[in-house]
Amino acid sequence: MPYTYTRTIRLADTDAAGIVFFANYLGLCHEAYEAALTAAGLPVQSFITGGDVIVPIAKSSVDYLRPLQCGDRVSIALTTSLLSENSFAIDYVITRLGPPDKVAARVRTEHVCTSRSRRERTALPDALAAWVQAG
Amino acid sequence: MPYTYTRTIRLADTDAAGIVFFANYLGLCHEAYEAALTAAGLPVQSFITGGDVIVPIAKSSVDYLRPLQCGDRVSIALTTSLLSENSFAIDYVITRLGPPDKVAARVRTEHVCTSRSRRERTALPDALAAWVQAG
Amino acid sequence: MPYTYTRTIRLADTDAAGIVFFANYLGLCHEAYEAALTAAGLPVQSFITGGDVIVPIAKSSVDYLRPLQCGDRVSIALTTSLLSENSFAIDYVITRLGPPDKVAARVRTEHVCTSRSRRERTALPDALAAWVQAG
Amino acid sequence: MPYTYTRTIRLADTDAAGIVFFANYLGLCHEAYEAALTAAGLPVQSFITGGDVIVPIAKSSVDYLRPLQCGDRVSIALTTSLLSENSFAIDYVITRLGPPDKVAARVRTEHVCTSRSRRERTALPDALAAWVQAG
Repeated sequence: MPYTYTRTIRLADTDAAGIVFFANYLGLCHEAYEAALTAAGLPVQSFITGGDVIVPIAKSSVDYLRPLQCGDRVSIALTTSLLSENSFAIDYVITRLGPPDKVAARVRTEHVCTSRSRRERTALPDALAAWVQAG
Repeated sequence: MPYTYTRTIRLADTDAAGIVFFANYLGLCHEAYEAALTAAGLPVQSFITGGDVIVPIAKSSVDYLRPLQCGDRVSIALTTSLLSENSFAIDYVITRLGPPDKVAARVRTEHVCTSRSRRERTALPDALAAWVQAG
Repeated sequence: MPYTYTRTIRLADTDAAGIVFFANYLGLCHEAYEAALTAAGLPVQSFITGGDVIVPIAKSSVDYLRPLQCGDRVSIALTTSLLSENSFAIDYVITRLGPPDKVAARVRTEHVCTSRSRRERTALPDALAAWVQAG
Repeated sequence: MPYTYTRTIRLADTDAAGIVFFANYLGLCHEAYEAALTAAGLPVQSFITGGDVIVPIAKSSVDYLRPLQCGDRVSIALTTSLLSENSFAIDYVITRLGPPDKVAARVRTEHVCTSRSRRERTALPDALAAWVQAG
């Protein structure tokens, strides 16, 4: 079962077209990613902002399938996959909760594990690799 | 007991100073306001974006007492007060949860009930007035 | 010559990792898109928020090549291409201005022209089609 | 003459109420503050994110006078004033450019100069004090 994060769409997520601004779908997915790492007991701040080994995003893509409005309830399901010993992908499905539930977007981010001090790619830390491989 | 909203500080809330960007404290409080209206069964979208009677914010103020970092847990407690038959205030206390808990900011927003069609102030709808008076 | 938009990276664009938050690259590109439409004399608000014919984004993708920091100057060059009679793509190159200049990201958005009243795809308005075909 | 920053309101500034989200007025003012420091030759990144001496915001307040929409042109004029040897205020007037011009908001931020290493208030650096006193 993939990790699933649930959230209500808020006014600040939307724009004057009355729906969630397209860039904010990526922000929603990063929220789900942070929540998933936290739920797995991994040190989010270390990997994201603090340590020598960080996992910046190298690619992102979004397929926008349905608009989302203020007040909508959404779930975001994450599936992780190892791409190499120093990179991984996360596939997200954003679902607008109903009934009936409707897929609102499919998002993918690719992350490359990097050593800041050595300025080069480095193997995923064991705990992170285990989380990625758990799916 | 004031309504209390709880939230984890996320990467997107922060800036390169390593802490929550000062404008985002207002966004956090608006999240709490939307959650409080929803919890009270009030039609958030109607009052905020959709109906003829809206309650735009006329004033806001923030006292920043402590910085907040990615991963911090915060609670936001709301206290409402009627200012006139067509306006109200919300006072928010943002607390960084510990132990020990520390007050991170005090925020106030003032709202003026407005009819879009008549372009003038109008009395609060009964359900909203009841919510404000409940404190 | 593609339309080019220039901008300084600001604190609010960044996150606690000290660099521009990955979702904000899409926001930067949308700024450039709005500026390009305005420079071409096209009614931005009509296409984006107001009219019956809108051009929502159906796909986006980003290749992140270099981080961007507060104070960096960037240029964003747009190249447009028609995909069908009712859709088009925009390719953006975000360059961190030097010397030396360095490509910081490549971004693509795909837009589908839609009639809100008829809830279906519709041909691009002539003025928009002309702008897309001009490249 | 106060420093004046000019900007077009963009889709990302707005929310589903069709106007600029109230928290974003503070973001607009911080943009103007960063531009003013840069124009004065002061090291923005040092004061904001990087050095030992930083000038975090201790208070902010906004009077919202008129809504702003996507496409509106605004000017933001800054007036600075010294509050003590280690603090200063900035008053901003956000004007929606016409004709006729209309004041859209009045904003104030108060900044306290702080040494990160000593965790206490400290005197403004000379160059910053000179900028504040120039008004």
